[in-house]
Amino acid sequence: MEKIAIIGSGLIGRAWAMVFARAGHPVKVYDNAPGAVDKALGLINAGLAELKGAGLIEEDPAAIMERVTAAQRLEDAVGNADYVQENTSEKPDVKREVYAKLDAAAPAHCILASSTSTIQTSRFSEGLEGKHRCIVAHPVNPPHVVPIVEISPAPWTSPEVIEKTRALHVKVGQVPITVKKEVEGFILNRLQAALLREAWRLVGEDYVSAEDLDKTIRDGLGLRWAFMGPFETIDLNAPGGIADYAARFGSAFESMMGNVRYRPWDKDLIARIEAQRRELMPHEKHAEREAWRDRRLMALVAHKRAQDKLDT
Amino acid sequence: MEKIAIIGSGLIGRAWAMVFARAGHPVKVYDNAPGAVDKALGLINAGLAELKGAGLIEEDPAAIMERVTAAQRLEDAVGNADYVQENTSEKPDVKREVYAKLDAAAPAHCILASSTSTIQTSRFSEGLEGKHRCIVAHPVNPPHVVPIVEISPAPWTSPEVIEKTRALHVKVGQVPITVKKEVEGFILNRLQAALLREAWRLVGEDYVSAEDLDKTIRDGLGLRWAFMGPFETIDLNAPGGIADYAARFGSAFESMMGNVRYRPWDKDLIARIEAQRRELMPHEKHAEREAWRDRRLMALVAHKRAQDKLDT
Repeated sequence: MEKIAIIGSGLIGRAWAMVFARAGHPVKVYDNAPGAVDKALGLINAGLAELKGAGLIEEDPAAIMERVTAAQRLEDAVGNADYVQENTSEKPDVKREVYAKLDAAAPAHCILASSTSTIQTSRFSEGLEGKHRCIVAHPVNPPHVVPIVEISPAPWTSPEVIEKTRALHVKVGQVPITVKKEVEGFILNRLQAALLREAWRLVGEDYVSAEDLDKTIRDGLGLRWAFMGPFETIDLNAPGGIADYAARFGSAFESMMGNVRYRPWDKDLIARIEAQRRELMPHEKHAEREAWRDRRLMALVAHKRAQDKLDT
Repeated sequence: MEKIAIIGSGLIGRAWAMVFARAGHPVKVYDNAPGAVDKALGLINAGLAELKGAGLIEEDPAAIMERVTAAQRLEDAVGNADYVQENTSEKPDVKREVYAKLDAAAPAHCILASSTSTIQTSRFSEGLEGKHRCIVAHPVNPPHVVPIVEISPAPWTSPEVIEKTRALHVKVGQVPITVKKEVEGFILNRLQAALLREAWRLVGEDYVSAEDLDKTIRDGLGLRWAFMGPFETIDLNAPGGIADYAARFGSAFESMMGNVRYRPWDKDLIARIEAQRRELMPHEKHAEREAWRDRRLMALVAHKRAQDKLDT
């Protein structure tokens, strides 16, 4: 069982602690803010209880918590670690400073992985002696519920580090994918950006309300995408598969999107969509609705697991 | 209870028959291909049994089938109908011919709605005496499982027809949205096209495999989109809501997508993605996997209904 160090104990760091500890790994948590880790341990415990309630773990949370310990210094956390999952703030300067420390303190074989969603591996690892062991392992919030992890290496990350990182995430029950070349936003946020850009435009040019647009996904396409993904969806939407689909619909899609021009999200449009959303959910309900979302995510993941079991 | 006529008894027509009949409406089905309707009634019966098995209807399929009858002529189907759902082939000439007949045969108050995914209302209704009662009600396949319906009127469709169409679909348990101005692909397929275009490019330029890209949606973003939609997703992803999200991530999204250039799906790329999909699912498994998809869709819809009930 690889020994795991979690650096940064915010929302993402705590979720990672649950992911690794529930899979049986010893986990040390470090945060440079005084008192943060103690607070984090309590929240990790509460998070595990929620997972138990949703049927997503079988082991007793107290038994899992025995594998999670607080580290007083960064060196204590990573000194004998096999894998570090770093979750500090999204600032290139901070990341570079943190990775210099991690590279100095972690044993030579230890993998240094970042949860960053915006800073590519090459930007925080360049010049480090151990740059070959640095990598991005980007989750979707919250990773103890949503399984995807984008593994994005720098050109100099060693193939062995890529393979071991991917294997570790499979072993703990996540779903890793490999981003073969560095690209802004990795894969998931690029797909989100492409869809959002069209969504903002359609509301901006008054083809549809934000509420109705959300329905086309959550009561339409999103039902397929929740268990198939876009390529399998179109592969099954033509009797002959992808090539057949491209022959049938390729030119229609081309013509549909060919003349679209996008503009930045302007103040006026932001205010209009904000107003539409506030009518549906007043600001004071935000935290409550976030808790609802996480409950629904847990229930959906439990549903998918049960269905996958029926399939096999 | 409005009397419904279904014109065209293929996959979509049969699904609509189930939607209206299970909600208590009398449904007449017509198809100009000899013998097609008799065959369709058997398949509708089988489809209702599947819905029953998935817990999506409570009434006995035999009782529902009593409300579904075959019409020998188009005039018999629509002669005393309140609402027509048309599902003939996706050819403008065919549609225009069919709508001329429907407009002549249906009583003056009857709404004439099309399931078309590509032909806007103005293209098949222009010049008809009853053009004000023509409208698109575009479903996602299969509409007896996936609830979204895109209501897309022509500029001359009367507000009353729009409102009644929307209300009828709500009453039968579908989720209608209004496309306020005619636009190629309506809303849902435009969103799909925007995401697919980026997906094809990312695989085409070798950033990711088609399999891994599918995982980013089905094990990542698709989990949120299956019950929230893209605007609610980002609204909850920043503490201050949409405006806060735009302030935090708007320029990153802008820069991410700003320099992207799309090309048509070329032969070579189509062949590569086809090959990747055929490795995951050989062609001879297509029908079996389609049946799997529909089972999973039904199970997912049942899951969402149960969760919605818990929420309230």
